[in-house]
Amino acid sequence: MPELRHNVLTREWVIIATERAKRPQEFVKVRRSKEERLSFDPKCPFCPGNEAMTPPATLVIPDDGAWKVRVTPNKFAALSYGGERLRSFEGIRRTMTGVGIHEVIVETPDHSKSTALLEDRQVETILDTYLNRFNFASADPRVEQVTIFKNHGVAAGTSLEHPHSQIIGAPVITSQLRDRLINALKHFDEYGECIFCRVLNVELQEQTRIVMETEHFVSFVQFATLTPFSMLIMPRRHMACFSEISDAEAADLAHILRRTLAKLYHGLNDPDFNYTVRTAPRESCGVKYFHWYVSIIPRLTRVAGFELGSGMFINTSLPEEDAAFLRAAAVHA
Amino acid sequence: MPELRHNVLTREWVIIATERAKRPQEFVKVRRSKEERLSFDPKCPFCPGNEAMTPPATLVIPDDGAWKVRVTPNKFAALSYGGERLRSFEGIRRTMTGVGIHEVIVETPDHSKSTALLEDRQVETILDTYLNRFNFASADPRVEQVTIFKNHGVAAGTSLEHPHSQIIGAPVITSQLRDRLINALKHFDEYGECIFCRVLNVELQEQTRIVMETEHFVSFVQFATLTPFSMLIMPRRHMACFSEISDAEAADLAHILRRTLAKLYHGLNDPDFNYTVRTAPRESCGVKYFHWYVSIIPRLTRVAGFELGSGMFINTSLPEEDAAFLRAAAVHA
Repeated sequence: MPELRHNVLTREWVIIATERAKRPQEFVKVRRSKEERLSFDPKCPFCPGNEAMTPPATLVIPDDGAWKVRVTPNKFAALSYGGERLRSFEGIRRTMTGVGIHEVIVETPDHSKSTALLEDRQVETILDTYLNRFNFASADPRVEQVTIFKNHGVAAGTSLEHPHSQIIGAPVITSQLRDRLINALKHFDEYGECIFCRVLNVELQEQTRIVMETEHFVSFVQFATLTPFSMLIMPRRHMACFSEISDAEAADLAHILRRTLAKLYHGLNDPDFNYTVRTAPRESCGVKYFHWYVSIIPRLTRVAGFELGSGMFINTSLPEEDAAFLRAAAVHA
Repeated sequence: MPELRHNVLTREWVIIATERAKRPQEFVKVRRSKEERLSFDPKCPFCPGNEAMTPPATLVIPDDGAWKVRVTPNKFAALSYGGERLRSFEGIRRTMTGVGIHEVIVETPDHSKSTALLEDRQVETILDTYLNRFNFASADPRVEQVTIFKNHGVAAGTSLEHPHSQIIGAPVITSQLRDRLINALKHFDEYGECIFCRVLNVELQEQTRIVMETEHFVSFVQFATLTPFSMLIMPRRHMACFSEISDAEAADLAHILRRTLAKLYHGLNDPDFNYTVRTAPRESCGVKYFHWYVSIIPRLTRVAGFELGSGMFINTSLPEEDAAFLRAAAVHA
């Protein structure tokens, strides 16, 4: 019989298709042909030498006359850098000027070197850059919510192969984030504990959905995860905001992020995926009830009418099997 | 400058990319080759003569020795027909047996005749069938929330070409539906009006996002719609539940649903889409604050990391332009 599981962090119910679940191997991506991977593409705006194809850089991490990581405003920014945040409320018609920050973080000069294949030190430089731009965007008085995210592959919403992430500083807190903050706050009020710390402790006790553990972080498949092979990377230490991370923790996160992605890369043959940093907003840094983490979402299935129409997902894999598969996946480094 | 708009029905903010928005024409689907459309496929489980390939029918609408519409349990049901609804709560581990109803409604014997190309009377038969199965699922004491939905095309989550819809009766109310019910209830408590009726009245006054009007229904693009060409078909009369529809209204809905879908079909060259019936749950039928409707979601863009990580959408088209384009789209019937 299928099993419904409740996600205590998001209050979503998910149907785990226990009987008809696919085996992890069935999610391995089949390559259409031998894809040639070029380290340089003369038409790519993110490749070295093509810097003029993007807006001027806002941050460059140098590397012997070249660069390691490069940040520019998004050429097709969703929000405008200039202008004031102005609201207009007339009855049910509520609008705001679309102002904020939208930057692209080019993660490596190499056109086709996925995060999974980089050196730990390069991933550390990427994370340092995230932190720098997170603080930059958070400092903008028009910005309320900062989202760091990566789109890898067409199914994840990008057609640009060159490894890059993005950061958007939006002028409002979304109802999704606000609902999760309130949910966590109520749990704290009722139980006197951070619900995220509790989830992490339960996962560490049960040990059935852990993918990897390091000194400061744990990557695991959630008990009630919505889609196959989705994972969280959660810091062991309680911190509400990403910006509270220490240098030692950032170095450790680089290691676990790269290796967790490498398990996906080698285990499922480089699937398309998104990841995003989920954090409390600036005003709530330091609170006892919220806890930041990285969410990794492989794009192996499609959202259909049931999910859109009900808000409930059907997961066609077993979280425990997904985790066991990824634990066993060989990482060549 | 981009514009942020607030969706008062869902409390979501959406970024309308006013400057870099695509023109409606840019969303027209390009066909890869001349696709041959067969009215019968010998391997299709939904084609006449292949009835043995599905579980036994639960409802058949006869047509001169053949059938017009046929309903069967889903062969790969997400929920189990048998068994009790049992909950288990141990701390943050909350589960339930996956029991409920999951049926497939085969909409026509013709293998490739989209809803857009059917006769109004056939669509009326489909809607009558929805009503029958909605009432059947709602009557199951284990069922709390019933979702009717259709997946059309691969991007919408189906690989089966033969026109069909599905109905799922789930054993819980999702937090998404509950949040929307509470949001509407609060609006009623504060303003003494149904927020959906209000939205409909504003749309009828402004006349800039209407796609089509009939005696009993209006199809329109929402002011703060999340994705290109998404539409609602809303009844003019206040009704919380789909099951409150009258015969005359059902006939009228068949007409506006088919013609609205035909505008998509002819205007955008048969795009993949989902539609779903959004309704109050059984226990809330008759309430003054909620209002059922049909939501049509063409699958023209992909959800990427920003949407997943923030809950905020970027709509790369203008609702007013989308509506004007669809109003003008010719319908050959």
